[in-house]
Amino acid sequence: MQTANAPTLEPTRDGLPPMPPGPPHEELHFAAVAPVREVVAGAAQGLVLPFAVTAAMAGLGAAPSQTILAGLAAAAAGAASAGLGHALAARDAAARYQAERVREEEESHLYPDRERWEVAAILHRYGVRGQLLRQAVEAIASDRRRWVDFMMRFELDLSEPDPGRAARSATILAVAQVVAGLLPVLPHALAAPGAALGWSAALTAAALVGLGWLKARSEGLPPLRGAVQAVALGGAAAAAAWSLAAALA
Amino acid sequence: MQTANAPTLEPTRDGLPPMPPGPPHEELHFAAVAPVREVVAGAAQGLVLPFAVTAAMAGLGAAPSQTILAGLAAAAAGAASAGLGHALAARDAAARYQAERVREEEESHLYPDRERWEVAAILHRYGVRGQLLRQAVEAIASDRRRWVDFMMRFELDLSEPDPGRAARSATILAVAQVVAGLLPVLPHALAAPGAALGWSAALTAAALVGLGWLKARSEGLPPLRGAVQAVALGGAAAAAAWSLAAALA
Repeated sequence: MQTANAPTLEPTRDGLPPMPPGPPHEELHFAAVAPVREVVAGAAQGLVLPFAVTAAMAGLGAAPSQTILAGLAAAAAGAASAGLGHALAARDAAARYQAERVREEEESHLYPDRERWEVAAILHRYGVRGQLLRQAVEAIASDRRRWVDFMMRFELDLSEPDPGRAARSATILAVAQVVAGLLPVLPHALAAPGAALGWSAALTAAALVGLGWLKARSEGLPPLRGAVQAVALGGAAAAAAWSLAAALA
Repeated sequence: MQTANAPTLEPTRDGLPPMPPGPPHEELHFAAVAPVREVVAGAAQGLVLPFAVTAAMAGLGAAPSQTILAGLAAAAAGAASAGLGHALAARDAAARYQAERVREEEESHLYPDRERWEVAAILHRYGVRGQLLRQAVEAIASDRRRWVDFMMRFELDLSEPDPGRAARSATILAVAQVVAGLLPVLPHALAAPGAALGWSAALTAAALVGLGWLKARSEGLPPLRGAVQAVALGGAAAAAAWSLAAALA
């Protein structure tokens, strides 16, 4: 609700009246709970790979020491590639935003009629017509910065990236993944070899139920479905790992 | 350029003139090359995990058979969890879009003044003012479907998901990942034990250079930077895998 930050007190500000009351509970659209979602999603993701790799290793008769080695390597590699991958993707997105912005700016100089028409086509789609459409396009195009802002947001669907937030997300993701990734490996170090896979599966499934439940809740989705999905994902990854390793190794 | 699909021939359609000519090369913004990007990104991602896991295993003295087992398990688990994860995330996004849409629709009935004000606040940000602003808001709010469309797109930044496209992306991602994931494992099966890690690193680095280059090109970014980033990601994941496994196993 970024539009609601600064309710104006004047009767109207250039035609924008003060904000009327909305729903009693402030509209909590799902974007509001990003850090919680990031920890939960990172932890859920972090369980899957080490569980799948250790389950395939143990299931195919690898020695516990080798299973542990592979599980730790998978936990760390998954966390590092997810975290660094997220940070690099954010860097790329920022570079792309900048490049597209320069291009839109150029086009507003070289092909002003076309760029005006593109603004008109967007507003037309939402029912702004006739003389009103022409005036609205003129109002937007009268300030080049706002005009380019409009094209970036509504033609290209690009929002200005936030590097600080991306770095924080990348760190949360990597840490949550590697910590969660230790859980499925632990039973292979502590339990008797015959029982380790069972304990690892039970602990991982329990954690995935909890995390899938929380993740769905934080997104306003049915929690039970979230729990089932998370467990299914872990099971499918383990089945895939076991199948390929059994077929080719 | 979805707005450019059907140029009108009439002089104006409700105030929207025919599309004026734009840049000579049709504006190829990066969204146009999605399938290529998906194959390339999937393959690049698919190399990292099996390389990191096999490098850590071999580097810490695991037997080649165990290294191969772990590498195959990591390739399959990574591909399955990325592909299925993508498909489930798309399903969640579709459910969330539907839920938010129902909510916006309800709010347009319960708090019409507030929802009109939100439309006004968005247009106001782009320079539409005064009487023109009031008229534009009325035009948009005069059709409830378009009004809710506008709020979904411009207040909540949610685009209607495309389940067919998501399923295709998920499949491309999983297949590209698992096929690429075999490359770093292969030398451990074919080369002499002492040389396998070197071959695996060389092949993986060469493939990451090529894929990183192509990925950056398909996104309009500097190719060399893309190549360096991809290799850095693979190296960092292997270093993380080796460090954690060496420290704890």
